[in-house]
Amino acid sequence: MSGTLYGVGVGPGDPELVTLKALRILREAQVLAWPAPEEGPSLAREIVADHLPGGQREIAIRMPLSPARFPADDVYDNAAAEISAALSEGDDVAVICEGDPFFYGSFMYLFGRLAADHPVEVVPGVSSLTACAAALGAPLSAKNDVLSVVPGPLAADRMSARLAEADAAAVIKVGRHLPKIRGVLDDLGLTQNARYIERATMAEQRIVSLDQVPENAAPYFSMILVHKRAEAWK
Amino acid sequence: MSGTLYGVGVGPGDPELVTLKALRILREAQVLAWPAPEEGPSLAREIVADHLPGGQREIAIRMPLSPARFPADDVYDNAAAEISAALSEGDDVAVICEGDPFFYGSFMYLFGRLAADHPVEVVPGVSSLTACAAALGAPLSAKNDVLSVVPGPLAADRMSARLAEADAAAVIKVGRHLPKIRGVLDDLGLTQNARYIERATMAEQRIVSLDQVPENAAPYFSMILVHKRAEAWK
Repeated sequence: MSGTLYGVGVGPGDPELVTLKALRILREAQVLAWPAPEEGPSLAREIVADHLPGGQREIAIRMPLSPARFPADDVYDNAAAEISAALSEGDDVAVICEGDPFFYGSFMYLFGRLAADHPVEVVPGVSSLTACAAALGAPLSAKNDVLSVVPGPLAADRMSARLAEADAAAVIKVGRHLPKIRGVLDDLGLTQNARYIERATMAEQRIVSLDQVPENAAPYFSMILVHKRAEAWK
Repeated sequence: MSGTLYGVGVGPGDPELVTLKALRILREAQVLAWPAPEEGPSLAREIVADHLPGGQREIAIRMPLSPARFPADDVYDNAAAEISAALSEGDDVAVICEGDPFFYGSFMYLFGRLAADHPVEVVPGVSSLTACAAALGAPLSAKNDVLSVVPGPLAADRMSARLAEADAAAVIKVGRHLPKIRGVLDDLGLTQNARYIERATMAEQRIVSLDQVPENAAPYFSMILVHKRAEAWK
């Protein structure tokens, strides 16, 4: 009988923003899996490290720096094979996911490979979306606002159309797309309604207006929140 | 010196989906405040009831059934006055909020009345948005999807425009707007891509296709998730 694959959201970075359910599943699972860069520690694992009992088998899912040499698909194929083997032996495998597993999370790549053959349960977590709004100290969306989440890699014209019609918006995965996003917001006259948030809820959290972020200095996991009702920023 | 006003997200309903930070703040605050119907228990308070130490002062924010007789503005004015008095005495006041306080939460009504005069901190919680996706067992949004959150009270033409252009969408606050929403989704050919979720993560959780919800039977706190990529539902 197969074990269960758990996608466990551990929140945006503050170890106190982990749920009781996430902690229980992570402590009980026979096997833990977590994403990490090619070398060095896993941010996802570090969020919950103090709560792990020790003695669990751990599977590192390491993403190489040069995907041309070793494609992401191969990384997930290999991880899925290793996880599938553990599940087939009856072990539960808990994948530690930053934020929420189903909100733009890389858990979907394992889910897509494993859900047909094994039971899957997802433990929702505090997402970066609401964590950024809390860090900013301003409501994200209210009443009958339409809220749009717009990935930074989107082409400028599509991004502009989506931002033009939303009452509130979050541009995620900012990174190297910052100059384009800045241009789109400027053309829409929304620069003053936007705030840039980096590493929300972590010790290095930074919240600044758009003109204060140096070009090429935004990490991938940064976010720009936009609200049309300027009074929301007061 | 003023105490701090905390907006504390306690998640979508499952008491295990509360964060460590929410529990700490709720246990430490001198005063708790919570929304409730005119009579009967508060769902928000019930989520964390087992974790409260007892002996705290509690302020009920009761919303009357007939807002014409006693407007919501008056309810929030009165609650804000009572909370402000406690804060001015130096007490910390923690408002217990279902889901996340800044994601379409009624906490914004207290925030708007109190943030100018008192320090405010928001503790983000697991939102109904990601809780519904987890309950459904399908990714909410991934890669470069544009995700839109569309309130049910929106006019049909505006709702249709927003749903037409999003890759994934959540229609929230369904309630009595179900027939209109069903019509909009049907016109867009999206009925098969939609699922209806009620009371996610609670014992009474219900997930059905759109044609299985009886008219006038959807509670206010229900949600319809839509994904254009039909394979996401497999």
